[in-house]
Amino acid sequence: MTYRAQVEDIRFVFDNVAGFGQLRDTEKYAETGEDLTDAVLEGMGKLCEEVIYPTQRDGDLNPAVLENGVVRTSPGFKEAFAAIAEGGWVAVSGPEEYGGMGLPLALTTAFNEMMTSSNMALGLCPLLTQGQCEALEHHASDEIKALYLPKLISGEWTGTMNLTEPQAGSDVGALKSKAVPNGDGTYAITGQKIFITWGDHDFGGNVCHLVLARLPDGVAGTKGISLFMVPKYIPDADGNPGVANDLKVVSLEHKMGIHGSPTAVMQFDGAKGWLVGEPHKGMAAMFTMMNNARLGVGAQGVGAAEGAYQKALEYAKERQQFGPIVNHADVRRMLLSMRADTFAARSIVMSCAVALDMAAATGAENWKARAALLTPIAKAFATDVGIDVAEQGVQVHGGMGFIEETGAAQFSRDVRITAIYEGTNGIQAMDLVGRKMMDGGEAANELIDEIEAHAETARAAMPELAEPVWQACESLREAVEWLVSQTDMNTRFAGSVPFTRAFARVLGGHCHLKAAMAEGGEGARSKLARFYIRRLLPEHESLLVYAMAGADDLYSFSLDEMGA
Amino acid sequence: MTYRAQVEDIRFVFDNVAGFGQLRDTEKYAETGEDLTDAVLEGMGKLCEEVIYPTQRDGDLNPAVLENGVVRTSPGFKEAFAAIAEGGWVAVSGPEEYGGMGLPLALTTAFNEMMTSSNMALGLCPLLTQGQCEALEHHASDEIKALYLPKLISGEWTGTMNLTEPQAGSDVGALKSKAVPNGDGTYAITGQKIFITWGDHDFGGNVCHLVLARLPDGVAGTKGISLFMVPKYIPDADGNPGVANDLKVVSLEHKMGIHGSPTAVMQFDGAKGWLVGEPHKGMAAMFTMMNNARLGVGAQGVGAAEGAYQKALEYAKERQQFGPIVNHADVRRMLLSMRADTFAARSIVMSCAVALDMAAATGAENWKARAALLTPIAKAFATDVGIDVAEQGVQVHGGMGFIEETGAAQFSRDVRITAIYEGTNGIQAMDLVGRKMMDGGEAANELIDEIEAHAETARAAMPELAEPVWQACESLREAVEWLVSQTDMNTRFAGSVPFTRAFARVLGGHCHLKAAMAEGGEGARSKLARFYIRRLLPEHESLLVYAMAGADDLYSFSLDEMGA
Repeated sequence: MTYRAQVEDIRFVFDNVAGFGQLRDTEKYAETGEDLTDAVLEGMGKLCEEVIYPTQRDGDLNPAVLENGVVRTSPGFKEAFAAIAEGGWVAVSGPEEYGGMGLPLALTTAFNEMMTSSNMALGLCPLLTQGQCEALEHHASDEIKALYLPKLISGEWTGTMNLTEPQAGSDVGALKSKAVPNGDGTYAITGQKIFITWGDHDFGGNVCHLVLARLPDGVAGTKGISLFMVPKYIPDADGNPGVANDLKVVSLEHKMGIHGSPTAVMQFDGAKGWLVGEPHKGMAAMFTMMNNARLGVGAQGVGAAEGAYQKALEYAKERQQFGPIVNHADVRRMLLSMRADTFAARSIVMSCAVALDMAAATGAENWKARAALLTPIAKAFATDVGIDVAEQGVQVHGGMGFIEETGAAQFSRDVRITAIYEGTNGIQAMDLVGRKMMDGGEAANELIDEIEAHAETARAAMPELAEPVWQACESLREAVEWLVSQTDMNTRFAGSVPFTRAFARVLGGHCHLKAAMAEGGEGARSKLARFYIRRLLPEHESLLVYAMAGADDLYSFSLDEMGA
Repeated sequence: MTYRAQVEDIRFVFDNVAGFGQLRDTEKYAETGEDLTDAVLEGMGKLCEEVIYPTQRDGDLNPAVLENGVVRTSPGFKEAFAAIAEGGWVAVSGPEEYGGMGLPLALTTAFNEMMTSSNMALGLCPLLTQGQCEALEHHASDEIKALYLPKLISGEWTGTMNLTEPQAGSDVGALKSKAVPNGDGTYAITGQKIFITWGDHDFGGNVCHLVLARLPDGVAGTKGISLFMVPKYIPDADGNPGVANDLKVVSLEHKMGIHGSPTAVMQFDGAKGWLVGEPHKGMAAMFTMMNNARLGVGAQGVGAAEGAYQKALEYAKERQQFGPIVNHADVRRMLLSMRADTFAARSIVMSCAVALDMAAATGAENWKARAALLTPIAKAFATDVGIDVAEQGVQVHGGMGFIEETGAAQFSRDVRITAIYEGTNGIQAMDLVGRKMMDGGEAANELIDEIEAHAETARAAMPELAEPVWQACESLREAVEWLVSQTDMNTRFAGSVPFTRAFARVLGGHCHLKAAMAEGGEGARSKLARFYIRRLLPEHESLLVYAMAGADDLYSFSLDEMGA
């Protein structure tokens, strides 16, 4: 099959759902006109369709391997990454003074989506590099910026993030890696890190590790952690890769999916590192990187869903069982459910990207709060949609879906990790009902007000679609009220995952309604809105019941009573 | 980790939910006393825990391979299968006159569940053999029975079912394989079959293929299909494997999971076959095999769920992130959801098995109708639960879940096929709203009456649990009424999958309520019932909305409007 980048749909979402146009009214993004946006999206799309997509299955069949301490990447990956770098696509949102295009994050997000439809394993390499650029831009010294940013933005070098240790996953503060001052302004970094995505490769250049470690005077927990730049090769006086640093790849993981992405166990043995940001403020810097990465992972969910949908639709048109199977009611139901959810997820992810861009461009608190609110919803919902749509894609293929040659199973295996990394979806949900509701639900209610106001506007033109969205908002508002009144955090956490999904379901209804309104109520988008609002939106009701069921039942079980 | 066979839970379900005790009032199963039932379950459990489970991961890492036309199975599989055969576990429901134990299908179902928790790929070999025994018992001549049944029941030989061809999957009637009379009472079978589970192996003995093919005077479609026994080796005068038949394994599939199960493309080149049943009545005979296999696949869903749950619980108790993660609300929520759904699925599968046993033992129409009604629900729901629970099992493991060494991913990959084979879950749902509602909903309403009556009995003792189950029944009854009034079958089919799940959700509530009543309202089962009824049961409402949304929206899209 061939992959077709969804340039038109992304443009539609930008213009009619996510409010991309507002960016043009800011000074920072005043020049991101329609022509430029189109040219960028089309350029990305062409690259992904023609150069990246053909490498997808090779990466699955021929995983990256570690040979004599060196990572050898999958066939075609080096050339494909070179094409990404050459096109300037690694970090299109990178600052112009360091060679970036200074474009909105929304366009980077579009790129991450398309990369994932084409080759998720490879797409992780630019994704991590983007995050590193963002962290350096906001926290590194001018010297480090000048040395690293141009090479990262150009794709000459790549970046990684080193947080996790065997005993320190979600509990980052439990990390044991040490940083000891060398006396010359540099530090000696020692420790082991696991799950390091693109921890090494054979693309040439340098691999730049951002590593969390504790200084000798760092207190226990997250408040004693600092961030360091630890390059594979120490840059020489001209800024070129010089002598090898004291770090190595110990092993690569054998994973369920994204076989083409080398997931490394890294060992640092007194490796030379440079402090990024203030001592003991490493977590703050890392959060910059993580928040962007969360949005990027949400985009991966959308990209996997889009790729899986295209593959399933193509098969359903061709496969004959009592006529083409696309004509069977249940196959249509599956395909339309996939498509409707993909649109909802794309809309939410892009709305989050625009909110982050607006926050960066204006510094306004309400945009910051909107972005903070949407980030966990976008990450959790879009990755759940990616997993679910890829599953349904396998199902549409019937027996062929289980056969690896078909490629449907690869989408399903690859995308599975997105609900786990960059904070599991459970962690996202805790973030939403915890930190993001510390404002007493203000940011949530502001968004709900907007959705209701829009539904009221739409009511006259399309009551059948607008009324259920309005009603759903009312239910969501009640749930928010209930949540913020719970002072026992476990009561909130016990229903946080269903609450997050319910919130996304309602947002999805809003996005579909916007699409139908923009289209004028006739046509494919309006039909899809009708499908979503009649069939998928109602799920929010049972989810909200679940969300408000409290924690008592959960803790009524002793461990023995949980069995086995 | 170690696997612990759920002997106690299965016994509890037998006695308190599925009505196993009724079997003892029949002549056929009068001797299946409690002691015998216990001994059989414990024997199966011990074998699965000690002998089968240790082979699980070897099968995943070392798939069956085809070498010089011969299938070489995964390490340890030959010995493990020999242990199954030696214990007499291959076909415990096989007729006593042919060496079987003549035990209820419910006990075979327990075995299939445990086998799947231990090693699903290997468990498929006895599962297919059981189905073949059933088909032969009901349709084959006495000669064929005498020759094949004892060897299949003892596990000396194994059985396969050959239905699918590249162009004939769900549409079995499109098959092209031919059978031409040899003039001596045998037939020459020619054609290619795909997806043949355990199509060959190196266990010794014989591989007995039941093959669907068309006689020269067979009409097009399913009414012109006949069933043939086509052994790998033609039995000699003493009934021992003799000369090789004209058939071969062309290739094995590269699959997402169950790597240890050789899935063969089979080529028959004028292979010698014996007619089973009447000419042109092959589908009827095959349906006997398929119905049992559907129940068996449902049991696989339960088994995978159980295995995945045990693994996740063990990890959650050990893994420390801010204390043992089993103490985090969302991890508890996931684990209890897994456990509550596994119990519901087990209960529905066992209720279906008992209904099939009662139908066989009494010949009563109401039991036949109950079994026919429950089969698609049990198959579809239990396999969806298996997939969902295995997914949640991966999620509980966090990053480790994506690493193959952990084994959580294997459950998820292995169980994925169960929603597809033996009729996709979409086909099951069409069967439920189509064929199984041809009685105007009589069988469904009879079951709903029973559930309501039980809920009414329970209302006084536990109103909080009984009332929601009663209410859910009322909603389900309305949906059944709506369904049977729809004469346009596509209107039924458009919502058939959500309807099937809603039906199972309500049944699950009933089973949990029965468990809580049996326990007296205090204890782990009652707490689990409360978890299920408060958090999972409400899903039936949005599912029923979806189920009754009709087909018009689906067909309002042109193919172009479906995109890509």
